[in-house]
Formats: sequence, C-alpha cells, structure tokens
Amino acid sequence: MSTYNAPLQDIRFALHEVLGAEALFARLGFNEATRDIVDAVLEESARFTETVLAPLNRVGDEVGCSYDKATGAVTTPPGFKEAYAQFVDGGWSGLASPVEFGGQGMPHLAAIPLKEMIDAANLAWGNFPLLSHGATEALLHHGQAWQQEVFLKPLVDGRWTGTMCLTEPHCGTDLGLLRTRAVPRDDGSHAISGTKIFITAGEHDFTDNIVHLVLARLPDAPAGSKGISMFIVPKLRMDRDGNVGERNGVRCGALEHKMGIHGSATCVMNFDDAQGWLIGEPNKGLMAMFTMMNTARLAVGLQGLGLADRAYQNALRYSRERLQMRSLSGTKFPDKPADPIIVHPDVRRMLLTQKALVEGGRLLGYHAASLVDVIAASGDAEERTQADALLGFLTPITKACLTEWGVECTYHALQCFGGHGYIAEHGMEQLARDARITTLYEGTTGIQALDLMGRKTMQLQGAGLRVFLGIVEAFCKAYENDEGLREFVEPLRASAGEWQALTQAIGKRAMADADEIGAAAYDYLFYSGYMALAYWWARSVAAADASSQPQAFKDAKRETARFYFTRILPRTLVHKAAIESGAAPLMAMDANHFDS
Amino acid sequence: MSTYNAPLQDIRFALHEVLGAEALFARLGFNEATRDIVDAVLEESARFTETVLAPLNRVGDEVGCSYDKATGAVTTPPGFKEAYAQFVDGGWSGLASPVEFGGQGMPHLAAIPLKEMIDAANLAWGNFPLLSHGATEALLHHGQAWQQEVFLKPLVDGRWTGTMCLTEPHCGTDLGLLRTRAVPRDDGSHAISGTKIFITAGEHDFTDNIVHLVLARLPDAPAGSKGISMFIVPKLRMDRDGNVGERNGVRCGALEHKMGIHGSATCVMNFDDAQGWLIGEPNKGLMAMFTMMNTARLAVGLQGLGLADRAYQNALRYSRERLQMRSLSGTKFPDKPADPIIVHPDVRRMLLTQKALVEGGRLLGYHAASLVDVIAASGDAEERTQADALLGFLTPITKACLTEWGVECTYHALQCFGGHGYIAEHGMEQLARDARITTLYEGTTGIQALDLMGRKTMQLQGAGLRVFLGIVEAFCKAYENDEGLREFVEPLRASAGEWQALTQAIGKRAMADADEIGAAAYDYLFYSGYMALAYWWARSVAAADASSQPQAFKDAKRETARFYFTRILPRTLVHKAAIESGAAPLMAMDANHFDS
Repeated sequence: MSTYNAPLQDIRFALHEVLGAEALFARLGFNEATRDIVDAVLEESARFTETVLAPLNRVGDEVGCSYDKATGAVTTPPGFKEAYAQFVDGGWSGLASPVEFGGQGMPHLAAIPLKEMIDAANLAWGNFPLLSHGATEALLHHGQAWQQEVFLKPLVDGRWTGTMCLTEPHCGTDLGLLRTRAVPRDDGSHAISGTKIFITAGEHDFTDNIVHLVLARLPDAPAGSKGISMFIVPKLRMDRDGNVGERNGVRCGALEHKMGIHGSATCVMNFDDAQGWLIGEPNKGLMAMFTMMNTARLAVGLQGLGLADRAYQNALRYSRERLQMRSLSGTKFPDKPADPIIVHPDVRRMLLTQKALVEGGRLLGYHAASLVDVIAASGDAEERTQADALLGFLTPITKACLTEWGVECTYHALQCFGGHGYIAEHGMEQLARDARITTLYEGTTGIQALDLMGRKTMQLQGAGLRVFLGIVEAFCKAYENDEGLREFVEPLRASAGEWQALTQAIGKRAMADADEIGAAAYDYLFYSGYMALAYWWARSVAAADASSQPQAFKDAKRETARFYFTRILPRTLVHKAAIESGAAPLMAMDANHFDS
Repeated sequence: MSTYNAPLQDIRFALHEVLGAEALFARLGFNEATRDIVDAVLEESARFTETVLAPLNRVGDEVGCSYDKATGAVTTPPGFKEAYAQFVDGGWSGLASPVEFGGQGMPHLAAIPLKEMIDAANLAWGNFPLLSHGATEALLHHGQAWQQEVFLKPLVDGRWTGTMCLTEPHCGTDLGLLRTRAVPRDDGSHAISGTKIFITAGEHDFTDNIVHLVLARLPDAPAGSKGISMFIVPKLRMDRDGNVGERNGVRCGALEHKMGIHGSATCVMNFDDAQGWLIGEPNKGLMAMFTMMNTARLAVGLQGLGLADRAYQNALRYSRERLQMRSLSGTKFPDKPADPIIVHPDVRRMLLTQKALVEGGRLLGYHAASLVDVIAASGDAEERTQADALLGFLTPITKACLTEWGVECTYHALQCFGGHGYIAEHGMEQLARDARITTLYEGTTGIQALDLMGRKTMQLQGAGLRVFLGIVEAFCKAYENDEGLREFVEPLRASAGEWQALTQAIGKRAMADADEIGAAAYDYLFYSGYMALAYWWARSVAAADASSQPQAFKDAKRETARFYFTRILPRTLVHKAAIESGAAPLMAMDANHFDS
C-alpha cells in the first residue's frame, strides 16, 4: 500500500523562504497569521491528513460509494463519514473563510497546504468538502443577505456541503446548450427541472443538507450562454428565515462507474420542480459560475500536485529498497545481493523528473494562492489590478500543468515499481487512475489552453504575461552579477525573451486566421508552464542559498534545478516548434479522411 | 462501449504497398503465401476478432478471472473459453508455425496483422495464446526430438497453452538472483521447487494441460545469471512417450489484482517437487529464454499498437459526433446546434498524433516481423546476418516505442471524450488501463533502452544502426530529385546524420564513464524511434503516391506525414538535449538527499 508523509520541510520552505508569507500576511492585514500560527496549522494539517485520511485511501478505492435505487441515497466508503465529522469538529472546513460567517479568516496561502495534503492523502474524500468552497465563493460574491444567512454559515462550518451543477448529458464545455429550466413561482422561488451529470458529491451521507448551485434557463431567456441563470437548490427546502422544510425535488438518479476516485460520489442529479432561489442577476449565471470555477481550477491543480507528491514519495522509498542489478559504473553496495535501483541513471531520471515537477509545481500553485490573498486584501489598487491580471493568466497554466504533471509523475512512479506498480496492493496504480480525472474535470487541458491563449492572452493583450515577465526580469536583474546563479539566470532571461516573441508572433498570425489561436494554444500553455517553473527553480536556489537550511537541502535544490534546466526545460523546444508550424498541419485534412 | 473495426485498408497498404510482402514471400520460398491467400487471411482475421473477441472485451474487464482457493483452479470470464475453442477450431493457433508440427507455415509477416487485431479486439484474451508462441520457439530451437513430439504439437495446434516462468518476488529484471531449485531424479527428469509470480495464463480453463517453461538452478550451478537452466514443467505429468500422467506438483497460489487486463490470469505459481524436463544445455537457460523473449517483446509492441488503433477509432468517431462549441474560424455546421469537435485544432492535434503514431508504428512493427522471416528463410547468408543485426537493434525500439505510444494514444483518445472518457461505459478508460501493462512486462521501457544502448549499440558497435542508416540513405538517394518528396527527404537525411553523430558522441563519453550509457539510454531509444518513424512516414508517402489508392488516401498519407514532420519529429530536439547534457545532472545527487 502507498504511504503518505506531508512534506513539511519543503512546504515551509515554499511558504516562508521563497514566498515570504509572514511579511505578506502582515502587509495584507492577516494579523492572526503569524509564522507560529501558520506552522502550527501545518503540523496539525499533517497529523489529520496522515493519520485520519491517508489510511482510508485504499478502502475508498476498493469499496467505493454505493447507491440505493429505492431511496436515491448514497453510502460513502467505510470511515469516510467519520473522518468528515472529525474534519468539521477540528474547524478545518472554514479555515480560509471570513470570520463573520464562522470561518477562521486565515489567508488562502496559509490554507492551501492543507488542500495539497488532503488531496495527497485521499483525493476521493477531498472531493466532498471541495465544492463547498465554490458554493461559499458564489454566495459571498453574489448572494443576498438572507441567502448568506441561511446557506453560507452551514457551508462554512461544514454542517452542509455544496455542489456545482453545470454539466448535462449533451453539454459540458459548451454550457450555452444547456436545457435545465427554471420557472418563477409566486413565493419568489423558481421551479427547477432537468438532468445534470458528473455532479461531484451530489448525494452522500456526510450531512443532512446539500446546497446545489444549479445553472438553468428562465422561461424567456435568450438562447446560448447569455441566457443562463444560477440558482440555489438545497436538498432540504429552506425558507427565507432558515426554517428547514421537507425534501426538495432533487434526487440522485445514479452513480457513475469510473476509472478512479471510486470513493468520490459522481452523481446523475434529477431536478423535478425543485425549489430554487435565484442567486445574482438573471441571465448572468455563467459569469457567477466562472468566479467559482477559477477557484475550483486552482484547487484541481493542487490535486495533481498532491498525487504527484505522494507518488514520488513511494517511488523514492521503493527505489531505495528494491535490489536489482549492479550499477554499470561499478558495484555500489557490495554487501547486498544487488544494488538498490536508485543507483541506475534511468531510475534517477524518473525520480528527478518527479522531484523537479513536484517542488517547482508547489511554488506555481502556492504563488497563485497568494495572489488570491493580494486581490482580496491589498490596500493598493494597482497591486490588486496587477495581481488580478496575473492570476487570470496563471490559473489555466496552474490547472493544466499541475494536473498533466500529476499524470506524468504518477506514471513515472508506477514505472519505478516495474510490474509491481500494476498490482493493486502497492497502491501506485490507484494514484495513476485517480490522477487521470484531474486533466478532465473543471475544464480539460485543451479548454485551459484556449482560456489562456484566447481570453487571457489575446483578448487581454498579454496583461498577465507582462506582469509575470516583469517579475522574472526583476529577479534576473537582482542576480545578474551573482556567479552562483548565472547558470540559471542566463537561460531564464533568454527564454523569457523568446516567450514574449512567440506570444507576439501568434498574435500576428491570429489576426489572419482565428484557428491559429487554437492551433497554438496547447503548446503555448506548456511553454508557459515550463517557463514559469524555470523561474521558480532559479528562485528556489537563490532562496535556499540565502536561508539557514542544512547544506544537504541547499545542494538538493541546486542539483534539482540543474536537472530541471538541462533535462526538463528543453521541452520548450518541441512546444516552440509546434507553435511555429502553425495551423496548417492541423487543419489541412478533410474531416472525412482521418480513417485508416 | 468502445468498438473495433480491423483497419484492413491500412494493413493491406502496409503489407503490400510499403513492405512489398508478395515479392518478399515469393523470394523467401513461402509459396502458399500469395496475395490472395494473405488477403483472405486478413479478411477472416478481421471477422474473427471483430465478431468473436471484441464483444467479450468489456465482460473480461468487468468480471475478470476468478480463483478457487480450494482447488487452485482459475475460471476465465464468460465467453472466453468458447472463443478460444473457436480460435483453435479455426486453425489460428499455428498460423505461422512449421507445417511439420501441425502449423500453417505462413510467414510471420502475414500472421502479425492477426496479432494486432487480437490485441485491439481483446488484449486480455490475447494473453492466453500469446505465450504459447514463446514456448513453441523454445521447443523448436532447444527441444530434443521427444520433447518436440510430446509438447510441441499440442502447443502448435492450440490443444495446450504455454507460459514463461521467470519472475520471482525478489527478482524480475535481475534474473541472476532467482532461487527456484531443480534437483535431478533417477528417471532423467528434475524436481522443481520454488515460487514464480506474474505468470500470464499460469492457470485457466481453456485447455487440460499447460506447458510451463521454468527457469531454475541446478544443485551445483554457479551463482548469478550463469547458473540458470530452463525446464519444461507440464501441469499434467507426461512421460517420454507422450502418455499423460497425473497432476504435476505445480499449482496456482493466487491471482493478482491489477489495474487492467482483468480478463487475463496473472498467477502466482507454486512449484513443489514438480516433474520438470531440462530443455537445452544446463546453465544456459537464460540464453534460451532470451530467444523466446525477443519474439515476446515484438508481440507486446503489437499490443501497444492494437490498443492505440482501437482507441483512435473511437476517439475519431466521438469527435465527429460530439457537438460542442463553434469553430473559432467561423461556424462549420450551421444546421446543427454546435459544430462537431473535430473542427477544433486542439482535437485535431490529438487525433493526428494518434493517426501518425498508429500508422507509422504499424510499419515499424510489421517491418520487424518481416525480418523474422528473412532470418528464418533467406538463402543469402549476408542478408540473414544483416537482418539479424537490424532486428536486434529494432526489437527494443519497437517494444518500447509502440507500448509508450500505446499509452500516449489511449491517453489522447480518452481526453477527446472529455469527462465521458473517465466513465467505464464508454470503454476508453479500459483501453488506457490495459495499455499501462505493456510498458512494464517483458522488460520495462528502461530495460529496453539499456538493451538498445548497451548491448545492441555499444557492444555490437552499432551494427544494427548501420544497416538501418543504409536503408534510410538508399531511400533518400532514390528520391533526392523528387520534388514532391523533398519536404520529407531533406529533414530525414539531416536527422539521420545527427543520429549517427549522437551515437558516436555517446560512445566516446561512455569510455570515460559507464553511467553515460544508462543516462543516455532512454532518450536515445526515443530519438531512434522517432527517426525510424520519420523514415516510415516518408516511405509511406512515396508508396501511396506510387499506388492505385484513391486520391483521398494519398492526401491523408501526405497530410499525416506533414503533421508528423512538423509536430512529432521535433520531439527529437528534447531527446538530443537530454543526451547531450550527459550523466552529471542525473548522478550528482546523493541518494539520501532526494526527499522533499
């Protein structure tokens, strides 16, 4: 079975020594979030996830959720419900939610390590509280006072959970096609009818009530995406005074059978004249939903990171224990029947790839989380504007890269185990199956790429990219005379220039042919992701050198950075070649000629 | 559910128009293998695999094999046994086996499409007859006359099946560590005792008898890999006259629970004073096993190809049916509520990647199969020597690339389905899970890379590479003045030169440090694979142009080749950079410093 130990040393390094969390929190007015408090939260997060959630990861996969056709009830795997009760009792649910609604008011950046640890310990379990955050965000930003009073507090303290009901059988990406109807009623509520699919935590046995945020069409709504409104549909009817009524007209119709995350309830939800309350403006539901979705996209990125880290830890342990063959450059452990496989260069290639993507990816994800705090709490309007542009730019990169790297890392980790990796008892194949959902939900990688290239880069004229390039250039300037960092600063600066030039070239081509955007999108996204990681690896070396970390830690950061710059960053060469080849090689073939 | 249609048009193109099978077979003396006969075999292979095997693919996954602890018996999924009876009745088992032992005597190249189709239709089922071929090879090359008489004929006609029993719990790659013992008995047989794991088709209900080829140590065998002998251990004891005796001391102890290929019985096999017959020379068992293993490695490569093709077919169908969003360059299907997703450049990127890897990979695999025929049947000693060197060089490339591309293509295909790809009912996630074993068994990708770089390139001084480069250069020379092929011939020639230079550079570095071999191996293998495919794509365009295929087929080959040269071949840039970075970035870190 795979094990999990929260990587506290690297998490603390990321927060305190690279991102300067303490000073940031003080500046933003998070007075409670001192270093001592943050470190105590980390310790307790580690204890909870390692001892309560991680041991339930395998039973969640083996037993899964079950569905009772007669009642529509969903039973979660053994232990899941009890773990959730501990989560609520421990006050974890509202860690980063506003104090006025019962939360702990911690900054987002201080709460994000808990998220990473939950995902690493037990991704399927983590999906139940996950979407409460989305619902919380929607209610905070768009809810009326009575809606906040009635629905927000129980979501924040975890007494209830939330869902996002978007997808329908014939539409996922293209929500403009959705058909669920909302008919106004005399009491100011609406009758919601339709079928939603792929609803995470749509039904379960953790809590009495579940708050569904549902996209639907009002009777005379315009066609397409401009005619979508958002509604709150609780499992138990609620009046405006918070009185709980009878069961609402919403019911789980089936559970999906999936490749992984068996412990997570993925529901078909049937709405039949269910009582729903409009939230936000009529026909502006898609906008409201996108607010939630950006947070959810960062959260899914963290899922990829968590799984990658757990996979890496286990691959590393196995590579140190498994004895097989002798090192080609001479026996390293003559007292053993064979050398541990970590002596072999190709095993090291797989391990270092994981280490570089996990530790670099952590900074990518945590930095994005810190921007959420800046946007919410900075007193400087210009800083907020810049952070907003940067976060918009980094969100699709973070979501897509961390999840694709999650798939890649779980792949390498399984491969380190050889044939044993394919066997369920080692737990590596579960990590690979679980990771596979992350590149699909909350917008596939292709959709993230289009968001980055089309909306965040072309439409916004590279505003976010400019902010990021400014950060990179400031770093390069600060270290341009540093001998020890030259090996990283020089290629970083050169690549940053290339990145900018590529962006402009795509923009030019896109003016002649809009398909150039779609043709470049995927490769532009990964080019950007590897560039961002190059920056974080260079900064990690600088931060480690300046820190009081042990020499072994400093050495490991430098050696991993070297591996990254020589063995991973060259992936940008392929993405550059693909971008430069343009749309023609993709678009030339007649759709009827693809068959073999 | 995923469907399967044998891609007969492209298979015929590969055999007849690219590889010139008819002329080759005639030259090698396979007089039965006329074009008509070969085409008839293809048609019947398609019918059998599409109508008998493909419909059982999902039940194989869902029900899997089951194990009876009391008797050690294994029950295969519903329908599997009956399908095997049809396979045997149809004479498919010995299609490429010698006529004198009851086979059909067809060339290997004419039989390999059946293999691809079986793997695409039902990989798990295909694993039962698969290793009979390995046992057949071992008996043909190393068996005594009575052993061939008693064991070979029932294997060829499919009445019995075979296994390869190599791996033990503590050793897979490093067979020198194995512990299974063989003690001589008075009747000339040996008593075999030990435990083997990961034994494909070690026990099942298809046939009465199962012939295990087992690696074990004689009492005074030298330590390590030079003290391993091979034994025939039938499930039912046999005397030298072919009389069936009682149950032998071999028993399935458990079935493994795996990520995929649930319909394939992966057994723990316990040998307890089992009657075994030495095959080949004492202590030369590893050599004999490698003979079998090379065939098995090509066969596993074909598994990757088959799965990739099936995945592609389904992704293509879905991409034409699924309506979602409008094309960025303007609505393409105004009469539909949205455009089919095949209009989007990023979906085309995923589809064309699959098409390029599948159709190019088919030629890589089929060409290797043709070399088996040349080695077996050519009258020209020099041709046989060259074919042998080339096959040795191409075997690890074919195994590793076709299986890694199988994983990649099933990944892209699933991704084309979006969230629906993650749901079992569409069948795409099964293909991804099934594909995942292929990069592990019969030697992981890392082991293939070491075999290529260490043994087939360094030790044999590039003999196989030279033959392949000769073929490439002859092709380039033949077409150097062809305007229509220039766009492929020029980059092919340039890359071939670079390939040669890289090989020499690695050789030089390896003289100073043997770890340079392991450090370059993985990237050298993929560099070689993409080079080989560049050659096959250039040749495919030339062959299509020269053929009487419809213009749409010719266009599609040329357009896919363009996609390959502009979007896939640049992957060599990353592999080149990795090779040139050498061993240092991999070897610098202390094994104790990898933790985060």
